[in-house]
Amino acid sequence: MKIAIQGERGAYSESAAQNLLGTSTKISPYPYFEQVFQAVKDGKVSYGVVPIENSLAGSIHQNYDNLGMFHHKIVGEVFLRIEHVLLCNKNTQLKNIREVISHPQALSQCSEFFQGKRNVNPIAYYDTAGAAKNVAENSRDDLGCIASIHAAKLYGLKILKRNLENYSENFTRFLVVSKKSIPKILIPTKQSKGKTSLSLIPKQTGSGVLFQNLKIFADAGINLLKIESRPIPKRLFRYMFYIDLEGYIKDSKIKGVLKKLEKTNEELKVFGSYPVGRFTKIKS
Amino acid sequence: MKIAIQGERGAYSESAAQNLLGTSTKISPYPYFEQVFQAVKDGKVSYGVVPIENSLAGSIHQNYDNLGMFHHKIVGEVFLRIEHVLLCNKNTQLKNIREVISHPQALSQCSEFFQGKRNVNPIAYYDTAGAAKNVAENSRDDLGCIASIHAAKLYGLKILKRNLENYSENFTRFLVVSKKSIPKILIPTKQSKGKTSLSLIPKQTGSGVLFQNLKIFADAGINLLKIESRPIPKRLFRYMFYIDLEGYIKDSKIKGVLKKLEKTNEELKVFGSYPVGRFTKIKS
Repeated sequence: MKIAIQGERGAYSESAAQNLLGTSTKISPYPYFEQVFQAVKDGKVSYGVVPIENSLAGSIHQNYDNLGMFHHKIVGEVFLRIEHVLLCNKNTQLKNIREVISHPQALSQCSEFFQGKRNVNPIAYYDTAGAAKNVAENSRDDLGCIASIHAAKLYGLKILKRNLENYSENFTRFLVVSKKSIPKILIPTKQSKGKTSLSLIPKQTGSGVLFQNLKIFADAGINLLKIESRPIPKRLFRYMFYIDLEGYIKDSKIKGVLKKLEKTNEELKVFGSYPVGRFTKIKS
Repeated sequence: MKIAIQGERGAYSESAAQNLLGTSTKISPYPYFEQVFQAVKDGKVSYGVVPIENSLAGSIHQNYDNLGMFHHKIVGEVFLRIEHVLLCNKNTQLKNIREVISHPQALSQCSEFFQGKRNVNPIAYYDTAGAAKNVAENSRDDLGCIASIHAAKLYGLKILKRNLENYSENFTRFLVVSKKSIPKILIPTKQSKGKTSLSLIPKQTGSGVLFQNLKIFADAGINLLKIESRPIPKRLFRYMFYIDLEGYIKDSKIKGVLKKLEKTNEELKVFGSYPVGRFTKIKS
């Protein structure tokens, strides 16, 4: 089973894919998110795994846009704990490190580590896994990087320090997107709780519009797991809404609600219906 | 008037600050967002200007967290069009450029430019303005950077190509935060439309909770300008909500609504009440 991800081999997306779909998957890395969706469209891969939101950095609207443009379906999700690890080559020692390379967001999330070390320079790099690869290919003994424990294994790097991040409550939610099929492990069972993701563009603006939509959910006793407004590109002061509902789309309650929403909204897009994801971390 | 921003001189935050508060402000750059809030707290600067959301990359929860921790008030906002510009030294020509440095997010937002140019390598840098500074300090004639037109002026760089971004609908919303005072230009007038920003933690979970809160707004005829749910750090499956209301807090309608919200929620934080921001761009 081939899976497309954005970033280098060893990226957090790869760990998310393996946590959800098993370690026997074959990872196809692409530089840009859009190329992940395109690879799924072209049938080059079975599924794509992309981040959709992070507990510190928020929703990734770019991937909501890609969901809307490519019409792929979400078939699964997973919440991955982001643990940043300080890595280096075998012969490097912590006290000798002068430069640490990583993605600027990872460097920023580990700012407290750098504040205590004036002779260690954080240097921006394209991505965390790419930084690990660079260190492995480099024989410098004063160079470190911040990446995942998975990247450490993949590139044979030494772990100098774990949990380098300022806040441990750092989770990224990853989605599995598919053109059509569902991986066996993600086929809904009787036990599995479901989630349905959609976007809405109300017909009108004004104080009551969102309320009227939410009344439809409340009257049906359906729980919201996420709601987020977003200004519609090119239509200033008009808003769209991203909503995650508790339940599978095959439930008659949810089917009924979607019918009503179609009438009261200019646009309703259902991104998918899938088992609620686990909170997981990279095995060390 | 001293203003703290995150990033190097010439960052988009600096342009936002100058668009809103005038070009005679003195900019104090800090490496991390938290230091901007700290500088305001310590009285080292009059105000801080920080991004809170981007139309492609979403809300910056880190700065919502900082608002909650530091108890500063939002006193103003502005929406800045993010135009990425390709810059280089005077003697460099487009055809000679082999490397382009910038923040990974800016590089990613200009991916289409690079897809057409196989002999031009995008290289990650800590921030866009820092990349411009680096090019200016460097005599290489095969090096370019992606930064703002403001950074071009500040560092005396040549503009090779404007509007390098894939999507022109790229806006960042910046907030002015203050310990106490309000800059003259942001004092509400009779004409100015107001916005009030707050966060809520409902007492209970379940299908009706958000609906009951929104009923309070709808009954009072108050328009929502933003709503976003966010899982509460360290309290899995509990949600908080960020809400922007149309109107100033001094309006009796809004005062009444806030009183009701205090009763129905475990926590209500009002981040500020301020004039609705303009959509603006960097003057060229």
